[in-house]
Amino acid sequence: MKNKNIGVFDSGVGGLTVVKRLIELLPNENIIYFGDTARVPYGPRSNSTILRYALQDINFLKSQDIKIIIAACGTVSSVFFKNNINNFYFKDFFFTGIIEMAAKKAVAITKNKNIGIIGTKATIKSKSYETYIKNLDSKIKTYSVACPLFVSIIEENLFNNRIDITNKIIDLYLKDLKKSNIDTLILGCTHYPLIKDLILNYFDNKIKIVDPGVEIAKFTKSYLTQNNLINNNINKNNIKFFVSDSVDNFKNIAKSFLNIDLINQVRLINLENLENADKNFYPRPS
Amino acid sequence: MKNKNIGVFDSGVGGLTVVKRLIELLPNENIIYFGDTARVPYGPRSNSTILRYALQDINFLKSQDIKIIIAACGTVSSVFFKNNINNFYFKDFFFTGIIEMAAKKAVAITKNKNIGIIGTKATIKSKSYETYIKNLDSKIKTYSVACPLFVSIIEENLFNNRIDITNKIIDLYLKDLKKSNIDTLILGCTHYPLIKDLILNYFDNKIKIVDPGVEIAKFTKSYLTQNNLINNNINKNNIKFFVSDSVDNFKNIAKSFLNIDLINQVRLINLENLENADKNFYPRPS
Repeated sequence: MKNKNIGVFDSGVGGLTVVKRLIELLPNENIIYFGDTARVPYGPRSNSTILRYALQDINFLKSQDIKIIIAACGTVSSVFFKNNINNFYFKDFFFTGIIEMAAKKAVAITKNKNIGIIGTKATIKSKSYETYIKNLDSKIKTYSVACPLFVSIIEENLFNNRIDITNKIIDLYLKDLKKSNIDTLILGCTHYPLIKDLILNYFDNKIKIVDPGVEIAKFTKSYLTQNNLINNNINKNNIKFFVSDSVDNFKNIAKSFLNIDLINQVRLINLENLENADKNFYPRPS
Repeated sequence: MKNKNIGVFDSGVGGLTVVKRLIELLPNENIIYFGDTARVPYGPRSNSTILRYALQDINFLKSQDIKIIIAACGTVSSVFFKNNINNFYFKDFFFTGIIEMAAKKAVAITKNKNIGIIGTKATIKSKSYETYIKNLDSKIKTYSVACPLFVSIIEENLFNNRIDITNKIIDLYLKDLKKSNIDTLILGCTHYPLIKDLILNYFDNKIKIVDPGVEIAKFTKSYLTQNNLINNNINKNNIKFFVSDSVDNFKNIAKSFLNIDLINQVRLINLENLENADKNFYPRPS
């Protein structure tokens, strides 16, 4: 069981910000990453479509000798949360999204009890972060904003090439949030850590930012340790990447996410050739 | 046969600019529109994925009593063109993309033989327009630019709400094209007519713009007339819309495309529940 893989999936390349944090904290674990690049982005789609796609993604990872599956995607995590599918054991693996850990962190560090949340349309519409935060502390005020163009400008590398345009789009979405009194901001989408510095700068460095990748990596380390599942392998991470569309496109974009030449193994899979997502995929409470 | 439908498909809502032109020119025809909104956008995807999706879209339309199918999508039309699938008869319907008619129009109106082409990544990479234009007139010079963010800013309605940002993104992609000596520009993506005026303005109104929707509508009218397939129905267009994701999202975005309340019938279909795209789908030259 210890030698099994950590499974990570996302609609595309955003989840690589989570992989980066996993590598830092768990250098001996083997990771299987799946990016559904043939159907990215998930953020603007309906709940039922997102659920269907995510269950197909999980179905693929289930075949890859997995000990834990992480939905490294704010959109999937939020839609699952809204449907009461959160952290749970499923047969021989544990499943988790990114909502709880990021929300807990934000609640722990806010001083004035005003927390901002940014994410895709589906994430903001789900109210997943707000719901969890209010459960932890009903006195906290939340301010949520959907930023639908952020994923596109990140995937198109605009945040590196044209900071002026990127800053205008940041201003477009975050203007009202800046006028609020938040001292903590949750990056509710795994793409957003790539523009973290620009966002921090936009808020004159006066807020604290919660990166869900950092929190989920900490959680994963703690979960594996507590359950005696840490890999004793002395080799460094073996990471395999699977995508549902062009391998070359993925390699190109992935560079700006991981900054290291880890892309030694990227393979194309066709989800349509796999069986349909397991119809019996129901969560058991942990 | 005359009473059969005109089938139109696109990755999402872009093809509605084609529907608009069809309504203007063919007010008594019935139209079936399919937008693959669960997998939009097609533009950044690989050729094989685009082909697979497009054949599934056609497979759906084939079931809808069709006399002609129009790929109202620059990306699909380009990938089909590259694979030598262009205008052809298939059993009892005629299939056409938008490349030929737009290219012919540009060749007919250019005076200085310098033509610009803008489109999605897949469209520009396919060199479909260039290939067809050079076949018509080898002396013409073409200048092609991929504008991957245009679809996102149009789908997000940024071109209406924030013209300043839209103009900056237009400048980002079209700066070099402006320095060239083009007198004619093909909008190689069916989304782009929505920012036609901004683009024209960017070029100081000194160029002529080819809107593929206008050309494909003219072609369709001429094709139906020549083949005695014009609908004699005295009723106005009956238009049915099918989408693969949220009906409400489609209705909202479609407003800015059609400007009229034609969205009386929008239905959700799940392509995964249909049979796989016809494996025997091979073109016969017309």
